Amino acid sequence: MAVLGATGLVGRTALAILEERRFPIGELRLLASDRSASRTLTFSGRSHAVTPVVAESFAGIDLALFTCANDVSAVWAPIAVEQGTRVVDNSSAFRYHDDVPLVVPEVNGERLDARPRLVANPNCSTIAIVMALAPLERAAGLERVQVTTYQSVSGGGSEALEQLEQGVREGLDGDPPPRAGGLPAFAFNVVPQIDRFEDNGYTREEMKIVWETRKILDRPDLAVTATAVRVPVRVGHGAAVHVTLRRPMSPAEARERWTGFPGIEVVDEPARGRFPTPLAGAGRDTVFIGRARGDLDDARGLLFFVVSDNLRKGAATNAVQIAERLAGLAAPLARAGGER
Amino acid sequence: MAVLGATGLVGRTALAILEERRFPIGELRLLASDRSASRTLTFSGRSHAVTPVVAESFAGIDLALFTCANDVSAVWAPIAVEQGTRVVDNSSAFRYHDDVPLVVPEVNGERLDARPRLVANPNCSTIAIVMALAPLERAAGLERVQVTTYQSVSGGGSEALEQLEQGVREGLDGDPPPRAGGLPAFAFNVVPQIDRFEDNGYTREEMKIVWETRKILDRPDLAVTATAVRVPVRVGHGAAVHVTLRRPMSPAEARERWTGFPGIEVVDEPARGRFPTPLAGAGRDTVFIGRARGDLDDARGLLFFVVSDNLRKGAATNAVQIAERLAGLAAPLARAGGER
Repeated sequence: MAVLGATGLVGRTALAILEERRFPIGELRLLASDRSASRTLTFSGRSHAVTPVVAESFAGIDLALFTCANDVSAVWAPIAVEQGTRVVDNSSAFRYHDDVPLVVPEVNGERLDARPRLVANPNCSTIAIVMALAPLERAAGLERVQVTTYQSVSGGGSEALEQLEQGVREGLDGDPPPRAGGLPAFAFNVVPQIDRFEDNGYTREEMKIVWETRKILDRPDLAVTATAVRVPVRVGHGAAVHVTLRRPMSPAEARERWTGFPGIEVVDEPARGRFPTPLAGAGRDTVFIGRARGDLDDARGLLFFVVSDNLRKGAATNAVQIAERLAGLAAPLARAGGER
Repeated sequence: MAVLGATGLVGRTALAILEERRFPIGELRLLASDRSASRTLTFSGRSHAVTPVVAESFAGIDLALFTCANDVSAVWAPIAVEQGTRVVDNSSAFRYHDDVPLVVPEVNGERLDARPRLVANPNCSTIAIVMALAPLERAAGLERVQVTTYQSVSGGGSEALEQLEQGVREGLDGDPPPRAGGLPAFAFNVVPQIDRFEDNGYTREEMKIVWETRKILDRPDLAVTATAVRVPVRVGHGAAVHVTLRRPMSPAEARERWTGFPGIEVVDEPARGRFPTPLAGAGRDTVFIGRARGDLDDARGLLFFVVSDNLRKGAATNAVQIAERLAGLAAPLARAGGER
């Protein structure tokens, strides 16, 4: 097993999850693009040096998790694949290639049965949203999906998280001063931009949700819109979702469909004040759904709120699940992370 | 002039705005329900005692701003009105009464021309949303409105704000512990519940947005849905809005319509990374709109993001604007708050 991008937030989470789930690992190679190599990380009680990635890094390696930036994946995934390494890539470099499966195992895991050489791991918000959509799509068919996100700062990586921590400290006695260059602060703020802007006025993060939802559900025709917003939360993405189905579905039926779907936990008891929040969902592998209610003016409309840990199910856990299935581990050996 | 609820967040903001706008005030009576009386507040450089409200409090008073809780308004508004005092009530106690106008002066200010005895000031999120909707309704007609909010903690009052400040301090070195009774924390969290739950699964805050949008726009038939969510921001509410219009409208036309509407500032230059955020909008009286873009699958669909200061335009400024018009001040004497 190789992990490229091992020192990043998702890389370190992936290592923790491989350990928790007792993924059978012979040799472990921790790799980084030049900048962050030369560190050491602990795995299963042993210290491992992080080495700069080179072509030989993949020799004799069956499986690699890529938790690096797009440009690093774009260069190294073809090199690894050429040497016979199967790559699960968390970047978006290959997600929209027709011949690269984009997989959430509970939703379209059968795409892994052909043991593809390269598998793309979806966007962190999209994974949880698609988990919530899949049982509705199967039961009633989706006509329209409208997503508005509440995304935690860890989704932006370690540097973004450091900016949040610093901003919170600077802002303890009143709102923090504007940041250099007029960049919006994360602390005590809401930032309706994630990733760069596309020509159509949507951000790339919003378009990822649109493109990836269509691809994973195999519904290229599906009407999807998204607004992606950063909120001052450390870990855990939320999303308010409004769907229009092909037939009316009660909130009670939706809850039943979700409950019967692997990896989903329904937390939806308004009378007891129970609904999902990122603080409660962080550190878990489950996708939490609550606040289910009908559209007030359309019997085929349904609204709900989804929460999941963006570093775990939104990234590392989903990648490890893909790796498990590629490695022929039908059921994982342990699910410590999922039971917490 | 009397202010009932003068010691609360909105009450103190109202006093600041009356001062900024040089509202002509003869005698000023600062009133409170029993609990918070016995304090003093400064207005125009003079100290004023806050006294417990009694029936005589309104004798000889032309105009009163009520910035108190619903139950306090429900008791005292009729008593004040009976004595000839005009009341602008920020609570929701009278908002849904057919004979009480619910007013955003820029949108339906003509409802004040008959000089009603009691005027309701709308919900803090609704005011900004309706400001953004009104020019679209006039230009093209609205068919459907879908709102998802990012509401600051000051909307929950001083106690909620103190809980946020304490939670932020406790959570400096890692997420704060769960609160007593399992109540969700505001700090480093997102809480998809504001106000109590109704039987239909919506919160009362969400239903306020639905009912008040319909009433202010005089469109009882309008399809509206809302998801109201608390975020760890001190002041400034955001809302992601998705509308379906009766005819296609480009984002460029929408920006033009908003720019031509009083009290709105368009901040929408993706190429320069310019869009509204609550941190930038706090302390201002303007409603800020950005992120305008078309629905990807419906030419009549338009998405945008609205921000405004929930204590100012979302509450106190709007109430003072109503008071100005009731007092026959066609144009306010000064708009210091609006120029900052």
